[in-house]
Amino acid sequence: MTRNGGVESPSPRPRIHQTHPHDTPHFHSTVSERKLRRFNYLIFIFRLAAFCFALSAVVFMIATKSGSPRWYDFGAFRFVIAANVIVTLYSLFEMVASAWEISRGSTIFPECWQVWFDFGHDQVFAYLLLSADSAGTEMARQLRGIATCNAFCIQSDISVALGFAGFLFLMISSLLSGFRVVSFILNGSRFHV
Amino acid sequence: MTRNGGVESPSPRPRIHQTHPHDTPHFHSTVSERKLRRFNYLIFIFRLAAFCFALSAVVFMIATKSGSPRWYDFGAFRFVIAANVIVTLYSLFEMVASAWEISRGSTIFPECWQVWFDFGHDQVFAYLLLSADSAGTEMARQLRGIATCNAFCIQSDISVALGFAGFLFLMISSLLSGFRVVSFILNGSRFHV
Repeated sequence: MTRNGGVESPSPRPRIHQTHPHDTPHFHSTVSERKLRRFNYLIFIFRLAAFCFALSAVVFMIATKSGSPRWYDFGAFRFVIAANVIVTLYSLFEMVASAWEISRGSTIFPECWQVWFDFGHDQVFAYLLLSADSAGTEMARQLRGIATCNAFCIQSDISVALGFAGFLFLMISSLLSGFRVVSFILNGSRFHV
Repeated sequence: MTRNGGVESPSPRPRIHQTHPHDTPHFHSTVSERKLRRFNYLIFIFRLAAFCFALSAVVFMIATKSGSPRWYDFGAFRFVIAANVIVTLYSLFEMVASAWEISRGSTIFPECWQVWFDFGHDQVFAYLLLSADSAGTEMARQLRGIATCNAFCIQSDISVALGFAGFLFLMISSLLSGFRVVSFILNGSRFHV
């Protein structure tokens, strides 16, 4: 098979090539557009879940009664708070970007930037959140040995668990945005059919 | 553009479609084959690096003088050892698989299984190793406060640092094998041009 022989490919599914991804939505085939829309809804839902879990992790960790130990007394819990705040803000931004893409059919940044931005930040923040929550788990385990730790221990346990749930959704988002990146590299468009 | 209009696509690079990915290497174009070979060498190097770092992390953690605290006295360090042993064995297997693919031009398992197996295990073990090393870092930080901790502290610090280096290479491998998975989904072959 020569290098120019790509036309007669008996590929299992017929594939649609968008000539200009930046065109108005009228130029996309309806099948492709419907699939992309479903994909974007899926991403939006995972972003929303990550946002909710990260936000509640922050709230649970911060809201402590006076008199008990506070989160800023422990390095690991400071790390947990920082990572969850970052993920909360990032998820909020990505929800806006996703809603923008669903409603207008185009990305906020140019398409090439957008797919790499999403994927890179998803990866880094997923690893960051997992790292923070692992350190927080170890810290919470150590705290158990201290006699004065009662309500704060339970709160920090819940906060770390919520952080892990947020990590799970962020990890799935990173898989989806990774798919978009490779789809963009291979086909020159984030559309995939 | 209709659904059947995919022939006249002015895609930036001409693309080669392998009709049967399981055919002998004679049927692959030379350009595609050379690129795949370079890709496989790259994967092999990252596997080798992950193997070396994970193995030395295990060795550094285990080799302690008698009389000092041992790694199995601490839950977090048991986790570090377990994760590094798993990554060592997995990297060894993947090195064999990669060498097999370079020398024979075909995967050990059927191609579909192989790409998903690689990617899934890369992801899970990368997250596992990062989690273990984060918990180990927190434990090592706590150990600093104890007066009896001298040589063991330094050894565990080095071991955790080596584990982080191993994680880095495993993470890059997971990106590469993720690329192979999406390439397989989109083009029906792990070959990409």
